[in-house]
Amino acid sequence: MSQKSDDAKAVVRYDETVLRAFAADIIRALGSYPEHAEIVARHLVLANLVGHDSHGVFRLSPYTDFVEAGHVDPAARPTVERESTATALIDGHSAWGHAVAEFATEIAIDKAARTGIASVGVRNSFHIGRAGAYVLTLAEQGLVAQIFCSAEGAAFIAPWGGTDPRLCTNPIAIAVPTSGDPILVDMTTSVVAEGKVKLSRTAGKNLPSGWVLDRDGEPSTDPEDLYTGGTLLPLGGVVGHKGYGLGVIVDLLGGVLTGGLPGMMGPFLHNHFLLQAFDPATIIDRGTMEEAQERYFAYLRSSNLRAGVKEILLPGEPEQRAAAERKADGIPLDAGVIRSLDELCERLSVTPLATR
Amino acid sequence: MSQKSDDAKAVVRYDETVLRAFAADIIRALGSYPEHAEIVARHLVLANLVGHDSHGVFRLSPYTDFVEAGHVDPAARPTVERESTATALIDGHSAWGHAVAEFATEIAIDKAARTGIASVGVRNSFHIGRAGAYVLTLAEQGLVAQIFCSAEGAAFIAPWGGTDPRLCTNPIAIAVPTSGDPILVDMTTSVVAEGKVKLSRTAGKNLPSGWVLDRDGEPSTDPEDLYTGGTLLPLGGVVGHKGYGLGVIVDLLGGVLTGGLPGMMGPFLHNHFLLQAFDPATIIDRGTMEEAQERYFAYLRSSNLRAGVKEILLPGEPEQRAAAERKADGIPLDAGVIRSLDELCERLSVTPLATR
Repeated sequence: MSQKSDDAKAVVRYDETVLRAFAADIIRALGSYPEHAEIVARHLVLANLVGHDSHGVFRLSPYTDFVEAGHVDPAARPTVERESTATALIDGHSAWGHAVAEFATEIAIDKAARTGIASVGVRNSFHIGRAGAYVLTLAEQGLVAQIFCSAEGAAFIAPWGGTDPRLCTNPIAIAVPTSGDPILVDMTTSVVAEGKVKLSRTAGKNLPSGWVLDRDGEPSTDPEDLYTGGTLLPLGGVVGHKGYGLGVIVDLLGGVLTGGLPGMMGPFLHNHFLLQAFDPATIIDRGTMEEAQERYFAYLRSSNLRAGVKEILLPGEPEQRAAAERKADGIPLDAGVIRSLDELCERLSVTPLATR
Repeated sequence: MSQKSDDAKAVVRYDETVLRAFAADIIRALGSYPEHAEIVARHLVLANLVGHDSHGVFRLSPYTDFVEAGHVDPAARPTVERESTATALIDGHSAWGHAVAEFATEIAIDKAARTGIASVGVRNSFHIGRAGAYVLTLAEQGLVAQIFCSAEGAAFIAPWGGTDPRLCTNPIAIAVPTSGDPILVDMTTSVVAEGKVKLSRTAGKNLPSGWVLDRDGEPSTDPEDLYTGGTLLPLGGVVGHKGYGLGVIVDLLGGVLTGGLPGMMGPFLHNHFLLQAFDPATIIDRGTMEEAQERYFAYLRSSNLRAGVKEILLPGEPEQRAAAERKADGIPLDAGVIRSLDELCERLSVTPLATR
């Protein structure tokens, strides 16, 4: 048993390997292929490791509900619908999203190895989790990568000037290989992820201003307003038309281009996405690029700091630090998450975390 | 003579063709190739047409200063430094930026026609103007296009948590072809373009909060603070780490990858950029895509409106409307701009606007 108690915060810390085996058992118990279960488990725990708990093992319970509601088909596998030397279109057939996205990532790696560049569209995947995970895999293979991830079955953001939800949080993630860990930007095109509003609602807290509008399009700090006809604001604050514009681009490239249905145009919790990669060595020698990157990073880090700030971080570094800390100290799960996982174990006859 | 007086606003309206010929005469008088002069003039007037006057003919005067200071070489032409089937690296050799970017755009079109996809890096170009213009050209050829545009010789934005300027406003522009005008997002990764702060300073007005920090990293509404050691904030407001992250990506892909020097790492007013394009027909039939786009646009437009808003616009529509209005009514230039252009005519012995 590798858990560590942390009474002060009512959390228990679990070793990543324990959590991974546990998550794979749950996904397998849902009738999934063992290799899909391994992939989903790896991605859920990876999200916890980098500190994005909203995409972590907490999802096992809602994912189970989505299997039962028919949004994900554990017996499905993705297929290639169309292909050229550098491009492909994949249908996910409602298979586990992490497995579909890994399939797309492997195809992108293969095509980029042949032609230096690849563009892979995917429709009808179940939830792929953290969009940044896949571009990071590509960057670890030495490729510059970008993903536009549209979502079906939910909408939170209004078109700029509107009051009705039409777009999802539609993340864009970009990763660039370096001599060390890749640089990673992984961001929603809304001001924050919808999960953060839900968290405030659960905690009974008000929101910061600039996050949501009520059903009449008036600014609000009440999280309840988002769930009673209101909307989440796009990225940008006073220049929110920029976030709206990026959100539309994500729907057009991730959703429409692949034959998917963005937002409430379709009924299932699906992701539709476009994954692009290219080999920077087609433009510049790898060593030359890495040396120039180091000089650039030193230039950024040479800035003086605002009061209370300890150091300049590069995009992706906060997640790398969380991962190092959690690999060493374990992944903290709070009592509410553990309770929901225990219930799930009972439902699926899987060994609970406490006795592993 | 095609000008129209508008005394109330102290502006004169000029026909686009008159302005284009005028701008080309100025650029030619600086010792430029006639074809480069035509391209620069076309892009400056196009910026005016779509309402982005900060990138319009007003630039002729500062551009002339930049020629004299050696930032642009009117006798230079871009060269291809490295090439593969789908990728290229171009050196701009300080040639006129609009001409360099058009050269890169043509290469991207040619490569995308062969392989369905293209990635073209460019270093050491003079100022390319509106980044959106080039992706729009690619989209008009039926291609999905994106540009990451880094800048050298200026810096306004601090790394997140810092107080010293290190990044330029680093725009990203993306265009998607449709059955009508392309969808276009063309945005700085700062909260606003630096020119808007300069405009407020000239007008003696305070800034909205959330635009700049003073030299100590404290919020300020005084435009002067940006020019005395302060910084412009990145896109995102409370989540400005997102704009900072995107700005770093733009420097890495536009600048470092191409062998350019981002921000104050280099002395010249240069742009370094990465232009990417792919043919959506490699993923989906053009007709199927366009029909699905129309359904998606109708879905967006079906939202109710916030108080005071007349309609939902798609990204790029505000610029299309400005262009239609200005094509019909002429391009308004204010007295200050006309005065600076008159002085330029005297300096370069070019026929002034008033006598054309």
